[in-house]
Amino acid sequence: MNGRPKQITLSLGVSKRFCIEDLEEFYSGVQLACDIYGVDLVGGDTSASRTGLTISITCIGEGEKGKVVYRSGAKETDLICVSGDLGAAYMGLQLLEREKSIFKGEKDFTPDFSGKEYILERQLKPEARKDIVEQLDKAGILPTAMMDISDGLASELIHISKESNVGCRIYEDRIPIDYQTAVMAEQFNMNLVTAALNGGEDYELLFTVPLTDHDKVSAMKGIKVIGHVTKAELGNYLVGRDGGEVELKAQGWNSLR
Amino acid sequence: MNGRPKQITLSLGVSKRFCIEDLEEFYSGVQLACDIYGVDLVGGDTSASRTGLTISITCIGEGEKGKVVYRSGAKETDLICVSGDLGAAYMGLQLLEREKSIFKGEKDFTPDFSGKEYILERQLKPEARKDIVEQLDKAGILPTAMMDISDGLASELIHISKESNVGCRIYEDRIPIDYQTAVMAEQFNMNLVTAALNGGEDYELLFTVPLTDHDKVSAMKGIKVIGHVTKAELGNYLVGRDGGEVELKAQGWNSLR
Repeated sequence: MNGRPKQITLSLGVSKRFCIEDLEEFYSGVQLACDIYGVDLVGGDTSASRTGLTISITCIGEGEKGKVVYRSGAKETDLICVSGDLGAAYMGLQLLEREKSIFKGEKDFTPDFSGKEYILERQLKPEARKDIVEQLDKAGILPTAMMDISDGLASELIHISKESNVGCRIYEDRIPIDYQTAVMAEQFNMNLVTAALNGGEDYELLFTVPLTDHDKVSAMKGIKVIGHVTKAELGNYLVGRDGGEVELKAQGWNSLR
Repeated sequence: MNGRPKQITLSLGVSKRFCIEDLEEFYSGVQLACDIYGVDLVGGDTSASRTGLTISITCIGEGEKGKVVYRSGAKETDLICVSGDLGAAYMGLQLLEREKSIFKGEKDFTPDFSGKEYILERQLKPEARKDIVEQLDKAGILPTAMMDISDGLASELIHISKESNVGCRIYEDRIPIDYQTAVMAEQFNMNLVTAALNGGEDYELLFTVPLTDHDKVSAMKGIKVIGHVTKAELGNYLVGRDGGEVELKAQGWNSLR
């Protein structure tokens, strides 16, 4: 991690369901994303698909020697940080699935998405936090370990702990959650912390920094310190609002389930 | 073209039809190919697929400045060369489809593939001609234009002509064809030259070299000079055994047809 994306290649498997205009629209979206992230579309392939649409994108990037960050560099007493907020994409998915099940069989149905734009966007249009990488560089902070949160915070934390041979403590009241996520979890009668820990598809950055960077990282916008790294023997725990500790389990998203 | 492959990334879409042993076997094949070609498998992704199996591989390579060859560099009087032989993969496909249609509905059926191993292998296990790139380098030949033949010789020649703003003449009696390909075309009562020109999936290299490299390139094993580059106004033609000229048309493989 901590590199810069430079090029992408795009391979498509397209079925008969799609017409040329669909593909043109798709490509214009890809071009827009390329412009925003400053990457070039340099190649790829197009094949026929029996059903649906298959999209495979490879991103090629550059990292400076000594600045590339792995999962294996977290050290005891390091601070654990996340960018943005968590659980919103998962609640967006819940909302989409609810409206879809209501829609089934109905003719003139307008799904009710008002005031829920944020969680929908988090599910449908995730953004890569290239800005955070730039911010960290500007602030002179070199994370000791880093990965993106695609399978859920709990699962990713366990990855870093395992690769770095450490443990971790994170604090429930420090986990950043947007109010729309909270409102939606309330409506669905779902546990908000579970959504934030295991929801997945957030595409935020999880990283650790040396304790000495505390003031610098705390002052940065859009980054929250949620806990700290411990000895491996101490395991991976969430400290609840009541002070109770719950062991973190990797209930992360499994696309094959 | 004319670079060296270094890394691949592999993305899979897997449906329920496949078990973990299938994937292990697949990966061991990928590993074998990586070993043979001297590339590293450095990343990728695995997703669920509703049907079948989707495989997307991106290859990343290196080229030396000044030695990278494009489609646009062919010059008048250059020699047109191809590696290996053409049309075999297409005849292999015909054979597979014939045996499949005979197999339909039959219980104890053993397809008749004896003596046809070569054309089957050309269809089922194409090889990238990394060896030719190395041979050319050793012989001190820098091609002026190069591409691989995946959609058929005719189609690729027209690509090079268009990009280089030239024309071409190739000679029917110079096109390299394996005897198994010829036997199969005879059996199927198919035009052998059509199979070689438009069959596709050969994955051989098509390239042009300066006329001054004639002796060097002629002496190389597994490379055949099949024609020469002309002015653009002279078009793209195949010169038949009888001396008659037929314009080349891009009837190349189209996966969406």
